[in-house]
Amino acid sequence: MKIAFIGLGSMGQPMALNLVRAGFSLVVYNRTASRAEKVVEAGASRSNSPQDAVRDVDVAITMLADDDAVEQIVFGAKGDGSGILQALKPGAIHVSMSTISVALSRSLAEAHLSAGRGYLAAPVFGRPDFAAAAKLGVVVAGAEQAVEVCRPLFDAMGQGVAVIGQEPWKANVVKIGGNFLIASLLEALGEAFALVRKYEIRPEQFLTIINSLFRSPVLENYGNLIAAEKYEPAGFKLRLGLKDARLVARAADDSATPMPLASLIHDRFLASFARGKGEIDWAGIAESIAEDAGLASQKR
Amino acid sequence: MKIAFIGLGSMGQPMALNLVRAGFSLVVYNRTASRAEKVVEAGASRSNSPQDAVRDVDVAITMLADDDAVEQIVFGAKGDGSGILQALKPGAIHVSMSTISVALSRSLAEAHLSAGRGYLAAPVFGRPDFAAAAKLGVVVAGAEQAVEVCRPLFDAMGQGVAVIGQEPWKANVVKIGGNFLIASLLEALGEAFALVRKYEIRPEQFLTIINSLFRSPVLENYGNLIAAEKYEPAGFKLRLGLKDARLVARAADDSATPMPLASLIHDRFLASFARGKGEIDWAGIAESIAEDAGLASQKR
Amino acid sequence: MKIAFIGLGSMGQPMALNLVRAGFSLVVYNRTASRAEKVVEAGASRSNSPQDAVRDVDVAITMLADDDAVEQIVFGAKGDGSGILQALKPGAIHVSMSTISVALSRSLAEAHLSAGRGYLAAPVFGRPDFAAAAKLGVVVAGAEQAVEVCRPLFDAMGQGVAVIGQEPWKANVVKIGGNFLIASLLEALGEAFALVRKYEIRPEQFLTIINSLFRSPVLENYGNLIAAEKYEPAGFKLRLGLKDARLVARAADDSATPMPLASLIHDRFLASFARGKGEIDWAGIAESIAEDAGLASQKR
Amino acid sequence: MKIAFIGLGSMGQPMALNLVRAGFSLVVYNRTASRAEKVVEAGASRSNSPQDAVRDVDVAITMLADDDAVEQIVFGAKGDGSGILQALKPGAIHVSMSTISVALSRSLAEAHLSAGRGYLAAPVFGRPDFAAAAKLGVVVAGAEQAVEVCRPLFDAMGQGVAVIGQEPWKANVVKIGGNFLIASLLEALGEAFALVRKYEIRPEQFLTIINSLFRSPVLENYGNLIAAEKYEPAGFKLRLGLKDARLVARAADDSATPMPLASLIHDRFLASFARGKGEIDWAGIAESIAEDAGLASQKR
Repeated sequence: MKIAFIGLGSMGQPMALNLVRAGFSLVVYNRTASRAEKVVEAGASRSNSPQDAVRDVDVAITMLADDDAVEQIVFGAKGDGSGILQALKPGAIHVSMSTISVALSRSLAEAHLSAGRGYLAAPVFGRPDFAAAAKLGVVVAGAEQAVEVCRPLFDAMGQGVAVIGQEPWKANVVKIGGNFLIASLLEALGEAFALVRKYEIRPEQFLTIINSLFRSPVLENYGNLIAAEKYEPAGFKLRLGLKDARLVARAADDSATPMPLASLIHDRFLASFARGKGEIDWAGIAESIAEDAGLASQKR
Repeated sequence: MKIAFIGLGSMGQPMALNLVRAGFSLVVYNRTASRAEKVVEAGASRSNSPQDAVRDVDVAITMLADDDAVEQIVFGAKGDGSGILQALKPGAIHVSMSTISVALSRSLAEAHLSAGRGYLAAPVFGRPDFAAAAKLGVVVAGAEQAVEVCRPLFDAMGQGVAVIGQEPWKANVVKIGGNFLIASLLEALGEAFALVRKYEIRPEQFLTIINSLFRSPVLENYGNLIAAEKYEPAGFKLRLGLKDARLVARAADDSATPMPLASLIHDRFLASFARGKGEIDWAGIAESIAEDAGLASQKR
Repeated sequence: MKIAFIGLGSMGQPMALNLVRAGFSLVVYNRTASRAEKVVEAGASRSNSPQDAVRDVDVAITMLADDDAVEQIVFGAKGDGSGILQALKPGAIHVSMSTISVALSRSLAEAHLSAGRGYLAAPVFGRPDFAAAAKLGVVVAGAEQAVEVCRPLFDAMGQGVAVIGQEPWKANVVKIGGNFLIASLLEALGEAFALVRKYEIRPEQFLTIINSLFRSPVLENYGNLIAAEKYEPAGFKLRLGLKDARLVARAADDSATPMPLASLIHDRFLASFARGKGEIDWAGIAESIAEDAGLASQKR
Repeated sequence: MKIAFIGLGSMGQPMALNLVRAGFSLVVYNRTASRAEKVVEAGASRSNSPQDAVRDVDVAITMLADDDAVEQIVFGAKGDGSGILQALKPGAIHVSMSTISVALSRSLAEAHLSAGRGYLAAPVFGRPDFAAAAKLGVVVAGAEQAVEVCRPLFDAMGQGVAVIGQEPWKANVVKIGGNFLIASLLEALGEAFALVRKYEIRPEQFLTIINSLFRSPVLENYGNLIAAEKYEPAGFKLRLGLKDARLVARAADDSATPMPLASLIHDRFLASFARGKGEIDWAGIAESIAEDAGLASQKR
């Protein structure tokens, strides 16, 4: 089975490496060519264009920043048909692992179907360190047969593959819904920490107690970041959190689902971004919450 | 050590039972006398008034419904000094385990100090089944010596005692903050489930995936209730959730901590209550969220 | 008809003056005695205690800062019956013109009824300059006969008296509801102005257009303040706006009326207060809105 | 001066009629041809395609439902260059009077500039009865010379033309901002009316008082609709209000302006739409607010 991997960012690079290490024959493409070196050293071959990369493969994986990037790669820079959709062999499968909008995933599904190419949506949960450790959670949706063809790839990149149904965009809904839950946790923790600080309770003390209540590694991890006000280096940048908040808002709007908490979170990320916090960790929305309460940073 | 226990509701009764079983000498009082029978059978003695109950004890525990109930028991029905505060021996300790406002806890602390009585705030995390299993999480604040005197009692009722400081009301802040986090989770789950249902994904499928992400028994428990729309019998009634939402709102207001998520949750509970859902489980706010999205119950 | 007037603040003083000028026999009381001078010069007599002030009068008017102040004056500093309620002649009427909670107004109504004294709630719309010009809008509720007795007083202080019903607290609901509408306008203007500024449109330009649409002097007045960022001197202080936001939130909660916009406004005032803006004009919440958008003041 | 008018809906038809009556030479196009009859009877000529309609004119006016409709007319159904942009004479002016997104207006401005055609944005305030009475408020932005060329047209359709600057999209920002203020008023009135109803005050009574305070015909008009629960026939449909709420949300997001009230309004319209209220008047969001408060309609 020949594989193309397009998009070697902080997530894509370790994912591609894990595929090479698992013995798959990989051809890679990245806009910034230097990002490919590590994977090529490990045994992948390199291509100079997305179309060349996918021309002979059975499966093409894309792991890109956002809707725009995916649209350009799939349909060509000007929507002129110069993208990978045309370059793929009939019957080849495009696996879109990026966090993209439900709406785009839906139109990708339709475009691939019309063109006689396979399409799976397979977004992932987990940060770069999880990608490196092949511990990503993969959520897949699409035609059953295609899922089975690609399962060994998912197994090489993650632990645990959840298959969500035949309509590819459902996997994107799940990914967006999961991110919304994490963002909700950040907002809730930020507000709770501001409250306890106002009553002169140390956030660490509060965190210890709620950890024993919730016993969730996600809460513990983000709770520690917020208690320590450690927003740099960013594990996941706040401006990417804003991007995800937009994806939830869009999905909610398209499906006529009122989600006031999603709106609150979107406004929180927007305000944090507007106040210049776009490059810190997305847990840094807690800093905006503290500022709204008139609380000074405890670190300075 | 002689103990009085006032308030034998769904939480108080199993807590008192555990104290008796652990060998403590207990005198109990409950407004509705019949609720005392089970504890008396187990070996406690019964008193006909709160004042009589506390007159000779070293420690008086109160576990009551709300601020009003606590005020009546402590200060007397008309604030006329006919409550337990006056009846307690000088130096005896009142342990308030009810979920009450930070403001009331603060004024209780001041009143006990003036009167020469001890006062601990020791609210608990956990539902009645946790109380019965002596698995409550106890959060204590107050004078160190008093905490040490009472520690064996806490150990008999719960597992794990967290001491939060010398100012009693800090324990109430922590309790209120913890409840706020759970209520935030309910809102977030309710919105996420409505979203996935709109995209024809079964909530159970979504829940399985996010459980593997968050790995929190609290999320799993409430996620199951909401996915199954199982809001009766209520583990914790929605109108009590509204009471708690008011406590957070009050603490936020008193301390000048803007908490928009707490406001959203308060409005959610209020709307659910106004629509006649006060007696179902507080996870039932998810039903209001689904209704706002035009989703019919899947159970009917 | 003998009148007592208690509370000679920025509103009470011009109101009392207008009564004197209209020929009413007035005895005044104010905690800070110097505030009474102007009214005494105009012909009022002065009293050294609220009880003395009201002892012989037919009508006692109170115009005080908040619930606490009203409770102290009516029931005595310690709730010990040393207030004006006991000092009033049987059958005399207490006219409460302060902006107080619906809940307090209700209990005042009950207390006066039990004690055989009359009680009207008659809060006013208008700032100090309106009070001075006898242009206040008076909203009255209470027993019809008492309303008729007091009508000449209202006419001397305002223009237009609206009678809202027999239950006094209804007048307070109307006052609170009206203030909520103004605060909503402030929030809406603040957000709209931030938006147009982001698109490099001058607020003044936008304001001219919406003035021609809404043609409301209230919008025009506040629109001018916000466009000019003129928040000092305060016509109505932001911390008093916060007080009023609390009254709405309380009335909404007591009556099980979900008011998410009222919650948003409360949080906005709270955040503005927490960030040190309590003493500027309440239109200054627009400054917080602009800051959230990362907009610098245009004045500096 | 030859004019084309494209889009003869409930707004476009009376606007076109006023142009004909004012003596302008008009060629009209509407997808549903029958809508053109009235204008043709009045003296306009009819065209069978948008391109034909604009081919010889000096000014082409479009008054269409939404972004999609405008994009199709301007760029052709498939973005294939078969729209009016290509068909217009060089130097001819396209006046876009539809309520569209700021983002689309910006890209229209760029496209017309590249193509050597003029472009003005000139959205209007006012409902169909205002259009019929030539009382619309027209907000214009674009090149000064083009504005002067078109001024007689605006004068024939409205009263008062506000010129907002040279960048066309600024007019759309103003239109969107104005609509946001009206929607904010609807939300505020809906909440206030729910509150007073809970305290057994008739909305009409409350409305009379706040009308005397605000003295705004907009408030009076919508206040009457909400007090009477008269949401049919719709003057402006709720689903169009939702469309406008989306435009605000989009403009806020694109410009990094946190607008929590705009978010609240968007969620309110979305929930009302999801509950089947899309075809009633947009003031009908007040019905959702009343339902949230558990209030039954007073009409039934």
